Amino acid sequence: MRNDPEIFAPEAFMRTNPFDDDKLREECGVFGIFNHTDAAAHSVLGLHALQHRGQEAAGIVTYDGARFHTHKAMGQVADNFNSQKIIESLPGISAVGHVRYSTTGETIMRNVQPLFAEIDSGGFAIAHNGNLTNAWTLRKRLIREGAIFQSTSDTEVIIHLVAMSKQRSLIDRLIDALKQVEGAYSLAVLTKDSLIAIRDPMGIRPLVLGRMPDGSHVVASETCALDIIAASFARQVEPGEILVIRADGTESLHPFPKEKARPCIFEHIYFSRPDSYLGGSSVYQVRKRIGVELAREFPVDADLVIPVPDSGTPAAIGFAQESGIPFELGIIRNHYVGRTFIEPSDQIRNLGVKLKHNANRWELAGKKVVLVDDSIVRGTTSIKIVDMVRSAGAAEVHMRIASPPTNNSCFYGVDTPERDKLLAARMDVAAMTKFIGADSLAFVSLDGLYRAVGEQGRNAASPQFCDACFTGDYPIQLTDHNGGDTPNQLSLLSERIAGR
Amino acid sequence: MRNDPEIFAPEAFMRTNPFDDDKLREECGVFGIFNHTDAAAHSVLGLHALQHRGQEAAGIVTYDGARFHTHKAMGQVADNFNSQKIIESLPGISAVGHVRYSTTGETIMRNVQPLFAEIDSGGFAIAHNGNLTNAWTLRKRLIREGAIFQSTSDTEVIIHLVAMSKQRSLIDRLIDALKQVEGAYSLAVLTKDSLIAIRDPMGIRPLVLGRMPDGSHVVASETCALDIIAASFARQVEPGEILVIRADGTESLHPFPKEKARPCIFEHIYFSRPDSYLGGSSVYQVRKRIGVELAREFPVDADLVIPVPDSGTPAAIGFAQESGIPFELGIIRNHYVGRTFIEPSDQIRNLGVKLKHNANRWELAGKKVVLVDDSIVRGTTSIKIVDMVRSAGAAEVHMRIASPPTNNSCFYGVDTPERDKLLAARMDVAAMTKFIGADSLAFVSLDGLYRAVGEQGRNAASPQFCDACFTGDYPIQLTDHNGGDTPNQLSLLSERIAGR
Amino acid sequence: MRNDPEIFAPEAFMRTNPFDDDKLREECGVFGIFNHTDAAAHSVLGLHALQHRGQEAAGIVTYDGARFHTHKAMGQVADNFNSQKIIESLPGISAVGHVRYSTTGETIMRNVQPLFAEIDSGGFAIAHNGNLTNAWTLRKRLIREGAIFQSTSDTEVIIHLVAMSKQRSLIDRLIDALKQVEGAYSLAVLTKDSLIAIRDPMGIRPLVLGRMPDGSHVVASETCALDIIAASFARQVEPGEILVIRADGTESLHPFPKEKARPCIFEHIYFSRPDSYLGGSSVYQVRKRIGVELAREFPVDADLVIPVPDSGTPAAIGFAQESGIPFELGIIRNHYVGRTFIEPSDQIRNLGVKLKHNANRWELAGKKVVLVDDSIVRGTTSIKIVDMVRSAGAAEVHMRIASPPTNNSCFYGVDTPERDKLLAARMDVAAMTKFIGADSLAFVSLDGLYRAVGEQGRNAASPQFCDACFTGDYPIQLTDHNGGDTPNQLSLLSERIAGR
Amino acid sequence: MRNDPEIFAPEAFMRTNPFDDDKLREECGVFGIFNHTDAAAHSVLGLHALQHRGQEAAGIVTYDGARFHTHKAMGQVADNFNSQKIIESLPGISAVGHVRYSTTGETIMRNVQPLFAEIDSGGFAIAHNGNLTNAWTLRKRLIREGAIFQSTSDTEVIIHLVAMSKQRSLIDRLIDALKQVEGAYSLAVLTKDSLIAIRDPMGIRPLVLGRMPDGSHVVASETCALDIIAASFARQVEPGEILVIRADGTESLHPFPKEKARPCIFEHIYFSRPDSYLGGSSVYQVRKRIGVELAREFPVDADLVIPVPDSGTPAAIGFAQESGIPFELGIIRNHYVGRTFIEPSDQIRNLGVKLKHNANRWELAGKKVVLVDDSIVRGTTSIKIVDMVRSAGAAEVHMRIASPPTNNSCFYGVDTPERDKLLAARMDVAAMTKFIGADSLAFVSLDGLYRAVGEQGRNAASPQFCDACFTGDYPIQLTDHNGGDTPNQLSLLSERIAGR
Repeated sequence: MRNDPEIFAPEAFMRTNPFDDDKLREECGVFGIFNHTDAAAHSVLGLHALQHRGQEAAGIVTYDGARFHTHKAMGQVADNFNSQKIIESLPGISAVGHVRYSTTGETIMRNVQPLFAEIDSGGFAIAHNGNLTNAWTLRKRLIREGAIFQSTSDTEVIIHLVAMSKQRSLIDRLIDALKQVEGAYSLAVLTKDSLIAIRDPMGIRPLVLGRMPDGSHVVASETCALDIIAASFARQVEPGEILVIRADGTESLHPFPKEKARPCIFEHIYFSRPDSYLGGSSVYQVRKRIGVELAREFPVDADLVIPVPDSGTPAAIGFAQESGIPFELGIIRNHYVGRTFIEPSDQIRNLGVKLKHNANRWELAGKKVVLVDDSIVRGTTSIKIVDMVRSAGAAEVHMRIASPPTNNSCFYGVDTPERDKLLAARMDVAAMTKFIGADSLAFVSLDGLYRAVGEQGRNAASPQFCDACFTGDYPIQLTDHNGGDTPNQLSLLSERIAGR
Repeated sequence: MRNDPEIFAPEAFMRTNPFDDDKLREECGVFGIFNHTDAAAHSVLGLHALQHRGQEAAGIVTYDGARFHTHKAMGQVADNFNSQKIIESLPGISAVGHVRYSTTGETIMRNVQPLFAEIDSGGFAIAHNGNLTNAWTLRKRLIREGAIFQSTSDTEVIIHLVAMSKQRSLIDRLIDALKQVEGAYSLAVLTKDSLIAIRDPMGIRPLVLGRMPDGSHVVASETCALDIIAASFARQVEPGEILVIRADGTESLHPFPKEKARPCIFEHIYFSRPDSYLGGSSVYQVRKRIGVELAREFPVDADLVIPVPDSGTPAAIGFAQESGIPFELGIIRNHYVGRTFIEPSDQIRNLGVKLKHNANRWELAGKKVVLVDDSIVRGTTSIKIVDMVRSAGAAEVHMRIASPPTNNSCFYGVDTPERDKLLAARMDVAAMTKFIGADSLAFVSLDGLYRAVGEQGRNAASPQFCDACFTGDYPIQLTDHNGGDTPNQLSLLSERIAGR
Repeated sequence: MRNDPEIFAPEAFMRTNPFDDDKLREECGVFGIFNHTDAAAHSVLGLHALQHRGQEAAGIVTYDGARFHTHKAMGQVADNFNSQKIIESLPGISAVGHVRYSTTGETIMRNVQPLFAEIDSGGFAIAHNGNLTNAWTLRKRLIREGAIFQSTSDTEVIIHLVAMSKQRSLIDRLIDALKQVEGAYSLAVLTKDSLIAIRDPMGIRPLVLGRMPDGSHVVASETCALDIIAASFARQVEPGEILVIRADGTESLHPFPKEKARPCIFEHIYFSRPDSYLGGSSVYQVRKRIGVELAREFPVDADLVIPVPDSGTPAAIGFAQESGIPFELGIIRNHYVGRTFIEPSDQIRNLGVKLKHNANRWELAGKKVVLVDDSIVRGTTSIKIVDMVRSAGAAEVHMRIASPPTNNSCFYGVDTPERDKLLAARMDVAAMTKFIGADSLAFVSLDGLYRAVGEQGRNAASPQFCDACFTGDYPIQLTDHNGGDTPNQLSLLSERIAGR
Repeated sequence: MRNDPEIFAPEAFMRTNPFDDDKLREECGVFGIFNHTDAAAHSVLGLHALQHRGQEAAGIVTYDGARFHTHKAMGQVADNFNSQKIIESLPGISAVGHVRYSTTGETIMRNVQPLFAEIDSGGFAIAHNGNLTNAWTLRKRLIREGAIFQSTSDTEVIIHLVAMSKQRSLIDRLIDALKQVEGAYSLAVLTKDSLIAIRDPMGIRPLVLGRMPDGSHVVASETCALDIIAASFARQVEPGEILVIRADGTESLHPFPKEKARPCIFEHIYFSRPDSYLGGSSVYQVRKRIGVELAREFPVDADLVIPVPDSGTPAAIGFAQESGIPFELGIIRNHYVGRTFIEPSDQIRNLGVKLKHNANRWELAGKKVVLVDDSIVRGTTSIKIVDMVRSAGAAEVHMRIASPPTNNSCFYGVDTPERDKLLAARMDVAAMTKFIGADSLAFVSLDGLYRAVGEQGRNAASPQFCDACFTGDYPIQLTDHNGGDTPNQLSLLSERIAGR
């Protein structure tokens, strides 16, 4: 799901973790559970395990056999779904939930998912991970047909398509609707009598099926959300599959034309949690293997291998094991970080304030260091990290990156800067090395990355993954982007609600 | 506008003003201003003057020439629109606003008006005073046609009818929509280039037009909202009129079949503020004349005339002037009352706690007292008041009521108890006298009331007002009520939002 | 009690009720109850009835037989003591409470009373109405002796004097302490085994004793706080009396040198509630009699007598009854007023915005009007009221004031402007008449006022009341004021606490 | 500093990080800066770097040349000192700050430091890390002498001793006061003209001096607070030193009788941040060396070395390097953890919910695992961790602990459970092994620990550190503990403040 940041002016703030601003960001995680007691409490735990996929808002919808109930909040799951009162306000034995990343503040409560709609065949709630690439085009058409949109979310297009479908059953309406949308979508849909898990034909974003000890079903973006509630991993939801889970069993539909799957390869590099199992591999082991590939492709004579915590750690361990250079904690992370921090004065800003990371100078002084990070986006973080390590006394700083150069934007559910802000789109590796101030810099090769994921290499004729951010090879057409139906052509409402 | 109280379970609370719970309640006030600087600030003031028409929530939508902006909040205007920051978040030279009474808490933020919709011809906002009597019937049909409702408000029916209309211009769509609805509606509608004031064909709820010193226009439910911003009273919006105010002038449309007007007579008795001018009369003077009629119809030998403050005061003054009995303050009102108060223990409850009113015992002791109140609804207040006055030492307590017995529910925008909770529907005046513990009790006659409003008496063949609450003579059919399309047949969403 | 407004910079705000800013303000109310179930809930009700004596903060301390408990809050009683949870956090069968007026916001939580101290002989809590005139002088001495002050309240001086006293029993320590203080104090003190009611030797501020139906005792600033909990009025606490209420009975001590009582006469004019009984008279009846005196002393040929609501109403009724001119509601008060409101733009400010009052123009047009108000302080309100009534069409406006000209500051617990801001200190009646724009203006005479209170007139040799605000005759010396020990010589702490 | 948890009933809550509840907890961190622009902003950053020493509340006091200013808040620094408005409310070029751990909620705002007192010689603020062992004994005496305590903090004893001292200068008063107290204290004191850093004669808790690039001084509990503001490490404040920093230079006083220093050894094991430099050693390197000692003392045949994140990581790296067994991330930490979480149902609780940690099962399955943790307190965490790792498929689980068995409570500023809750006080290692369900369990020896810190071993005749938690050898007498002057003999006030 997406909401366009141009529509609402985000309140300016400085994050405590400025380094994280220089990461690509997964925009959502989804969770669903069916026919199990404490559906809401389990959803809270499942969403908590998916918190890394979106920290700005969370929501849960339950169905109690007669009515739907929802609670939504800006902020993290653990801060907003932490009272018995809230859990009790979400009765029922089935639920869907959502965590979301976004750039704006209070103005966007209406965008927080799951979205709910009451249609002729009954109510339903929908949670979406991914992004539609023809949402504004469809939205314009739907408004002409009389639909009233309440949010700026692309996901709302789906519920209007469902509501206006001429089909009778909700399943047929959903199929009718999804055949009109383009883009990436992993969906968890809750109806009066079913939980429906859906993955787009290319399976861009992940979605897995799990089973509770009592045999009931859960769906989640990642397996780590199964672990936390002691569910076992059953299988992934297949690309193009509509999996309908009812009290009397499950039904697997494949209504879309068959396409070759192209799951997002960046999930392996950064988005998914290291303890998740994704597309047949342990995420942690894939990341370690990328470190191994890096050590083979771009060896370096050094005293220490230092991860940029925490996302560079598995690749750093792999690099250290392959190279025989000791793995050490040369950068210490401050775990106490709030959502925002003071806008510092120029004086303080020039100090290069280290709100989140500090160099462990007693370890680094006089050493030749290999720094391992997962990716370079704008490069602003890399400059600071290299400078910090050097200021702490390191003799040499060699940067190794566990992904190829990121030089294209994502349109399938990942928050990326404009292309011209991507460092790798602006300069070659030699220039980047100079820019970030390292003694050397290297990125794992595309084939090295594919090898780490278990392939022989990239099949250029028919790539096994979506790697558009590295290659510009977009597997799904970008209708809105190319057609110019941009959101700011609409006179949408900026809205403030003083709640309670 | 209405939202059905059965849908959302209101949190139980005890009001500080238990006596006020025994009043009929106007459900809304509307305000609009066009082509004037500081549109938002003027709307805040206008709504503040209309606060007595709805204290539970308030909202304002402005249009800045390019975008619409809104701020809505639960609670009173003065508590929620009191910062420069909020006013600045509402830029523009045109605005509509709304105050609303309702029974539930945070769950209903989506019901707070003005409602906004983006349709093919552009955005528009709507504020509604009144109640539609075929809303659920229309809602069911609209959902079948693919509309997705976001609120439980009857007013939302209007915006979907507009969105789905096959007409092209917004005015034509509005006319198309309103021809399908039944019930009471005084509307203020804001579009990109106009402010539209609309009153239903019978003119049940009031709506007036005012003029700012610079010639620009305002509309409001009552004239007191004109006074506060130094606007002059121009005229009332006529029953059945659609008044379109644009930058280049106003246009008055009358698209509905002509009907005899039947404005609500209870506005004169209780709802409107005494300093308002309503349907050609001063509200204060009408109320004093009701007191005069009461003194003539039901004189009493007494020492003091005591108003039940504050709504009984004008009629008490009229009664005192006509009878020659001194007017005195025998009941003192505590002005410091919060929204809710402690749920007292049985012990305290039995004390007959007087959170809002206290007898002025040094005045009442040993005296024969005429108590004047505006109406009796359930009678629970009257019992306590009579008991309090008697406990303070009054020798005799004679109750005089400035309205006929209220024995029918209102379906046109006033919050009334179920019919079987109305005291006058359950017993005759003799039984009521005994029930409330008074030495005598009398209600002004229906003709006396009509005389006070300036008529010769009630024209039974063709009544000049809607007086259904006294007579059961409902001028507009009650489609939902009689057809059984009750709201709880829908599986609506209970929703909680932890906003900020 | 007092806290010095110079110490903390109050956040600028505009009150909704600008007219009320032009009143003198009582600074506190106190309440105590001993040996009765639900002590906290009864205190909440008692303080609610005393809310007019201080709206800015409230606090209650209870004793449960082993520990003291307290809850304090900025804001009104009904908004802050309204949950069962709060009442349950205040267990015990004895309690003291306090309401307070002050000019500053969150910074002053430490000043909110009752104050508590743990001393050698046990804990005690103290609630104070009045103001000490040698507090800063004593404070300086106490700090030299090692006392650490936590507030800027004059009341804290008392607890340090008690703590440092060489006497053994708490009563003896209290007497020791109070013999050192000068000024006005009505105190309710809670100890482990007693409730103590104390009034300064001149009895400047009121304090009454009541009895619950079960025989237990309550004390309160006014009788209206007895009415709300069904307590009967026993007697006033005498000037100079220390009344100790214990489980086994009461004891009345008179340790101070006997002085002639000089209770505050302004309590009769404005501070006390009209339904209270004060110093042997009904407050309401005294106020009506002032109106009668005014009508006799300064009659006027007019069509209507109009009160400035609500404080002018009783005198207006008296004036109307004595003069035979009809009493009418010519100014309507908006009861929905929040604590603050928007800082309006110049344009709106110039409109003479009427946030709280509106002229009932349909009643006033063309009439000769007598306006009755209780007092004139700065005169800013009177200007606006006269202008509003005249703009509504009144032919003549004659102002009658139910007190003599207020031309001196109070130092005994009433918030008054600096002397040079008092209108009557700056000009004579003729100039004032012109200043406020009235056709005539008159104040009740000092003897007229004394007659209304039941005296033959003022005994100039030995006045029966403190009337320093009218006469400059201060019955208690002003040590701090004259000695220059002003608070801003201390480097006090400005403090913000982000509580929850 | 300490506040007694028995006095206030903490609201029950379940932390998101249940494992952390099974740690000893440092109770405070202090910071001070003198004669530098942006004193408040620098203090915010310094306290943020010390956040691991106390997450429950934070406070800063500044002095602007004329007045002191303070802001205090429950919660973390980054959540409460994050606005320009707050920074601006703290003007001045000198400041002291404090972070604090505590067990209770809103009731204890008065305990949040720095504490402030206005005494005869001027105001001063004090921030305290440590705990006094004769605080209640002194408190009782001070109350007898007339002191009024406002908090339950032991630190308040110091300010009353200062206030009541007969010495003239603040320094002499401080020395007079500190000669009377027993226990551990590292203090930062702010006066009108100086910043004073003080460490108790044994130097139990750390305190360091740093220098800003412009030569001005800072003091802090750890060097990591210097790094964040680009201050350089100058030296530690010596045990028994009173270091007075003034505009014209510093002065070092040593007024206490000379004693052998006994700094807390647990700072090296767990409390201090790994990037700090403590008592002449890198904390990270000491921890790694403990892992090396462990690998030598208690080797094990295994496939993987797994840290219990994050506190076990440095020792695990040391263990892996010494043993040659690969270091792997077998437990993944969820970084998104709020302060509290839902009280789960029994069903969910029995699942062994993993809110903070998850086993990386794809790495652990079938492997013999060495788990490295820093300490065992109650053992409740170890049981869960071992069970989680085993459930994820580990073939063998060998636990190695980077500290000796913890079998005595700390009375010098660390929050420890009652002695009988400490696992090592209840059973021997064999029983503990069985209790936690490990295949083997070993603790580093006391001499091994001393070797890691750089000694030859523990000097039993004159130990180099305070290691009372392992040995019961308390270097400072426990007057309160042994004398029975326990806090609950006082009738202290439970207090709730509803702020704003």
